[in-house]
This record gives sequence, C-alpha cells and structure tokens, in this order.
Amino acid sequence: MITPPHPELDLAVSRIIKAPRSTVWQAWTDPSRFEQWWVPAPEVCRVREMDLRPGGSFRTEISQDGIVFGPHITGCFLAVDELERIVFTDALIAGWRPSEASFVSAVITMKEHPDGTEYTATAMHRNVADRDRHEQLGFHDGWGTVTRQLAELVESRAQTS
Amino acid sequence: MITPPHPELDLAVSRIIKAPRSTVWQAWTDPSRFEQWWVPAPEVCRVREMDLRPGGSFRTEISQDGIVFGPHITGCFLAVDELERIVFTDALIAGWRPSEASFVSAVITMKEHPDGTEYTATAMHRNVADRDRHEQLGFHDGWGTVTRQLAELVESRAQTS
Repeated sequence: MITPPHPELDLAVSRIIKAPRSTVWQAWTDPSRFEQWWVPAPEVCRVREMDLRPGGSFRTEISQDGIVFGPHITGCFLAVDELERIVFTDALIAGWRPSEASFVSAVITMKEHPDGTEYTATAMHRNVADRDRHEQLGFHDGWGTVTRQLAELVESRAQTS
Repeated sequence: MITPPHPELDLAVSRIIKAPRSTVWQAWTDPSRFEQWWVPAPEVCRVREMDLRPGGSFRTEISQDGIVFGPHITGCFLAVDELERIVFTDALIAGWRPSEASFVSAVITMKEHPDGTEYTATAMHRNVADRDRHEQLGFHDGWGTVTRQLAELVESRAQTS
C-alpha cells in the first residue's frame, strides 16, 4: 500500500517483486500466466480478450468453482508501453466505445529495482465517493492479494529458471 | 452524412474538403483556428485545454454571447496520429480518469482524396438509446454544420495562400 499522487481520488498498491521486469511483464501479458494471479485464490480467472494496444479489448471473467464464470473486467487498454506501463479502464470497451458501467481506470507501472522490479498498481476514480467505495469493497486486500500472487508466481519462476 | 460501421450504435458525418490534409490537420490542432469552427455560429467556442496526446486533456467551452461561457466538451484524447486520426472521449478526463458524465467517443479521420481531404467524424455511443438521443439532439445538423464551417475556413485559406 502506498500513497498515490491524488490520495483523495485514487488507491494504490506497490510491491518489490524479486524477478526481472521482463518476467513480470510476461506474467501480465501472457493470458495463460495472467489467469494464474489476476483474481484472489481460490477464485478462478479466465481471460476472454486481451488485445494489448490502445483501444484493444480487455475482458476477464471470474468463477467461484471454475465451472460457472461471470463478468469481471470489461474494458479496454489505453496505453501499452513495453516493460514499463499498462493503462486500462472500464469506462470504455473495445475500440474506445463508452461502456455501460464505468468505475475505474488503472495504471500499472514496472520499474527497475536493485532487488528486481518495483510494481505499482494505481486505481483512479471519478470522485471521492467512488474511491471510498472501492476502499470499502476491499481494494487493499484484493489488489494486495493479487499482487502478492503475481510476485509468488514470478519469484518461483525466477528461482527455478 | 454517411453510414458508420455500427449504424445501430454510431453516427457519422463525412465531407470532401478542398484543402490539403496538412491544412485540415492544422485547423484541428491549432486552438486559435479550432475555435473558429468547432461550434455552430453564431455561438462561440473557447479552447481551455488541448493536450494532443493519449490521456491529454481536451476541454472546450461554448457561449451564446462571447462573454458568458459554459462547459462544452470535457474529456481527453485517446489517440493522436499526425495528419490521420484523432480520437477523444468524454468518458475519461485528463490522465484517463473516469469522468462524471460519459456520453460519446469520437473518431476523426483525414484521408487523402483527389479533391483534397476526405474528413470523417464518427460518434460512438454505449447503446442504441444514447445513439438515438444524440440523433434527436441534432447530431447531423450540429456536426454537419461544424464540418461545413471547418471546410469553409480551410478552403478559403487554401484559395488565398
């Protein structure tokens, strides 16, 4: 948990991940690896669309039992800067079309760090009410958990490779 | 008026402008020229922010009398491809933050044409109701009028230069 640039509107988590930035980037951009950490276990994630370019569709689904899946993220990417930054939102869907339900834009950054990668995820909201609601819905627990899952996935890979 | 790729959700206007693409591009991206055509005369436009890059703020104001101005567009740019394409939305504001009021994303394209520039503006909506509302609010008259104003501005410039 860190203080984002606009703390009244935004929420952020940050973690030093002990793996090279390229490994973290791959865990984000390869759907088969992404599904392994994007939702808190034991819930299961399925990537429906991950079109990594501005305006490209980003759709994930979530399941309690791995059989019945419901919507999770329905949005689009806004910026994809190799090894450095991924920005997405649920305010727009594929092709930048306005979405039916807008809540958050997220900026993911990956920076070189002496111990590996400094990974930060910032969630931006339209107003204080949405920011506070997101916090009450368990932002820090949820985003913190999946960031830990990401770290565990790539750190075990870094040690065994 | 043309038929957009998703006619049930989108609205579009297109016009052959008898001026080089670079002149049309400049009339779009230079705020002092942009203000001369962006709202139907005799209403007056003022550009508050035009940060032409993905995530950059796009804010215009409108006035009946040139003295008292109210909000017009409050959004951000999503793509800026020199001489070719500008995409913006009011679903997000500066820095890609979700906006308070989301209605439309717009794709402006400029293509080479034997007589000058083929200029197309497509408005994308989240659903049929919003698309129909935009049409009833006078999309074709409004966007058609300002596209004509743009053409008249740059065509007179093309003839006198």
